[in-house]
Amino acid sequence: MRATVLFGAGDVRLENVPDARVIEPTDAVVRVTVACVCGSDLWPYGTMTPTERGRPMGHEAIGIVDAVGAEVRTLRRGDLVVMPFAFSDGTCAFCHDGLQTSCVQGGFFGGHGADGAQAEAVRVPLADGTLVPLPVGEDHALMPSLLTLSDVMGTGHHAAVTAKVGPGKVAAVVGDGAVGLCGVIAAKRLGAEQIIILGRHADRIALASEFGATDVVSERGEEAVERVRELTGGLGAESVLECVGLDQSTATAIGIARPGGAVGRVGVPQDEVMPASRPAFYGNITVSGGPAPVRAYIAELLPDVLEGRIEPGRVFDRAIALDEVAEGYRAMADRESIKVMVTP
Amino acid sequence: MRATVLFGAGDVRLENVPDARVIEPTDAVVRVTVACVCGSDLWPYGTMTPTERGRPMGHEAIGIVDAVGAEVRTLRRGDLVVMPFAFSDGTCAFCHDGLQTSCVQGGFFGGHGADGAQAEAVRVPLADGTLVPLPVGEDHALMPSLLTLSDVMGTGHHAAVTAKVGPGKVAAVVGDGAVGLCGVIAAKRLGAEQIIILGRHADRIALASEFGATDVVSERGEEAVERVRELTGGLGAESVLECVGLDQSTATAIGIARPGGAVGRVGVPQDEVMPASRPAFYGNITVSGGPAPVRAYIAELLPDVLEGRIEPGRVFDRAIALDEVAEGYRAMADRESIKVMVTP
Repeated sequence: MRATVLFGAGDVRLENVPDARVIEPTDAVVRVTVACVCGSDLWPYGTMTPTERGRPMGHEAIGIVDAVGAEVRTLRRGDLVVMPFAFSDGTCAFCHDGLQTSCVQGGFFGGHGADGAQAEAVRVPLADGTLVPLPVGEDHALMPSLLTLSDVMGTGHHAAVTAKVGPGKVAAVVGDGAVGLCGVIAAKRLGAEQIIILGRHADRIALASEFGATDVVSERGEEAVERVRELTGGLGAESVLECVGLDQSTATAIGIARPGGAVGRVGVPQDEVMPASRPAFYGNITVSGGPAPVRAYIAELLPDVLEGRIEPGRVFDRAIALDEVAEGYRAMADRESIKVMVTP
Repeated sequence: MRATVLFGAGDVRLENVPDARVIEPTDAVVRVTVACVCGSDLWPYGTMTPTERGRPMGHEAIGIVDAVGAEVRTLRRGDLVVMPFAFSDGTCAFCHDGLQTSCVQGGFFGGHGADGAQAEAVRVPLADGTLVPLPVGEDHALMPSLLTLSDVMGTGHHAAVTAKVGPGKVAAVVGDGAVGLCGVIAAKRLGAEQIIILGRHADRIALASEFGATDVVSERGEEAVERVRELTGGLGAESVLECVGLDQSTATAIGIARPGGAVGRVGVPQDEVMPASRPAFYGNITVSGGPAPVRAYIAELLPDVLEGRIEPGRVFDRAIALDEVAEGYRAMADRESIKVMVTP
């Protein structure tokens, strides 16, 4: 089958690889009907040291169950399923707590021997605990929005939850990428009264405003902090969604947080240490977040998608065929595209 | 009057200074009946660059109101009061939220022009919003425990609250200083089932056990992390109280936290950046805490002190006169004493 493999910075290729198949009795094989490129894919795409073997890419997909192992109980061939970016057993202490990204048997697609989802098919370990059947057909009009439940919408939601967004609160979203835009949707959905987006791309800002952002801050660094303070009566934002992962964006997130407020981090940290430790401490600012347990969030978000109350699929501004995947990476890396959908 | 002044590392002196007096109409002057030395005083005592003018020291006290400004409404001459380590107006948005350490008009004793409390008297700004009258006399037997409401017990409680300690949970306390010991009291009081203390001083560990610690880990670094994992079924502690403030102790606190758990920091951070940003992120570990709003906690903790349900005053293992204050610093810095009470 064909699958996307990254061989080094800027070198992503569609390769012929052995067909995905059931190995463990708890596996399922999913034939991918739609996948996409993630902002987090751009980190290795920008920096990876070349290797001969390469790394399978992609961790967001919807597809049709093609085969199941002997111990799979809740899925059958032909089911349309959404695949969270992490697999999980559904039975350990962490899965019980709704933190499937810390599952003791779990892992992440596209890493440590797991298949990538930018492919014709993917082997899904621990299928019962991982996959969620969808009550629609594979050609449903809401497919782009349903696909976001695999990662980006759940991740934006996680940023909002861990930043403690609630009714009437002031939220700020650092980053106008697809995650940040979904963060705006999530903040609005959870009742934030004022939603400040920090970003500087006109098309993304326009979409953020349609999603519910009330204010735009295009400054960076100290100027951004000043601007957010002006917009919040000098106090700062109660809830800050950090949707980038860089040192500067994290420092900004802490800088714009109101004392006693919370920063929800979902941008994958690119540094070993966190900046602004003292400002966070002296302001009693809570820093939380991490990989989103999207498996836990699908039940909550799916009805809102199906009933059209949220439209996260609008973050996709380009759809390509699988054999154009390299062009999809380039377009996202060059900021020509917010998020690219890939159809095998 | 006599007041403690730090002139540089290791150079703390009792000096004659102008008498404390009412300057603003919202001030009170408090004649100190009992004060103490804080672990956080040891940071400048260990490192301060010598200055000619020096820095007034001490931020924990109980005393008798000696004078009040014209606008002070809730206090009168002769009242016995406990003085939180921060002053606060009691009316701003942050005070309303119970975060008096971020008061827009507030500040900290012993810094930025405010008096220190290791003195015969102290000028207390914003007296109505700061001081809390005590319903006992100045020679009450529980005076040491009441004094801890000024800082150390409230700070240990803040660590426990921000680490989300609750009934049945597993808590770990990093640091066996007076704050860590009060953290043990607080974790027990809030219902933790297992309380692991990380420390290596026999006398402190013994006291921690009397306060409710169930397990002791004397290892450090990676070995401490391994040991806590062994003690918690491989999962880590749900609530970690960071009561030191060093890079290593913070990394350990994050390392021993259970995924999805929380670290409450109350040790004043000695570094600009926070270690273990990625482990905290990948484990969805919440890092919270900061200067404790002890003013808000006194109402909750005072009845437990007065009724003998908690005995935080036991952290004082030495009492000295004010003119021996330099010896008190030395004894604490040399770890001869856990915490020193000072009587003017």
